[in-house]
Amino acid sequence: MSGTPERRVVNLAQKLASFDETWTPKLIGSPNGQLVKLAKLDGDLMWHSHDDEDELFLVLEGELTIEYRDGNHAHLKAGDMHIVPRGVEHNPVTQTGASVLLFEPESTKHTGAHVTDRTVADQEWI
Amino acid sequence: MSGTPERRVVNLAQKLASFDETWTPKLIGSPNGQLVKLAKLDGDLMWHSHDDEDELFLVLEGELTIEYRDGNHAHLKAGDMHIVPRGVEHNPVTQTGASVLLFEPESTKHTGAHVTDRTVADQEWI
Repeated sequence: MSGTPERRVVNLAQKLASFDETWTPKLIGSPNGQLVKLAKLDGDLMWHSHDDEDELFLVLEGELTIEYRDGNHAHLKAGDMHIVPRGVEHNPVTQTGASVLLFEPESTKHTGAHVTDRTVADQEWI
Repeated sequence: MSGTPERRVVNLAQKLASFDETWTPKLIGSPNGQLVKLAKLDGDLMWHSHDDEDELFLVLEGELTIEYRDGNHAHLKAGDMHIVPRGVEHNPVTQTGASVLLFEPESTKHTGAHVTDRTVADQEWI
């Protein structure tokens, strides 16, 4: 059953073990025009928003805080899911380091309109 | 940070502990016209397909086999993800019982065009 991209079984832990880079989402699935991604996070990324895309975070390891401009924030531990609404500025921050699964439309830009040398435009399949 | 549906933190284990019914997907998120669901499975459901929707399974507990008509099947354990392609007949089967997270479009019908008394048309938010 393995080997055919359409019907492959993807083990999350195995895929996470296959890379070390942080803030560099890797692609693991593409159902219905959406992308499923794995990422390792450490420290903080940057304030940004996605005009037309909601962004789902599911924390697999570690802890992650999603900061919002209004002073609210979402604290996430392993097994916690949170959806950042489209158009809302946010900043992911982790002191412990974290591994996350992301679910978002193919059109989603890594750091929204805020492009810097940390922006990963071409994300790799693993 | 809890209480506002748009920015709530959803703990998967807590949500799973909140219901017992099998083959009755519960809704936990709705990003980008997709639905995120939790379901408990036991035994088998039925052969069916979804004409226009890919269906993502992520196994959280237990083991699950997705059977296909061509004799292939996908064996999934906790931490394994698999995407059933649109239009392909499949049958989920578990001997151990399993808890799964599902990602699929809002338009996805529980058992495709194959509607029986086990079909859950109106799925509940938890």
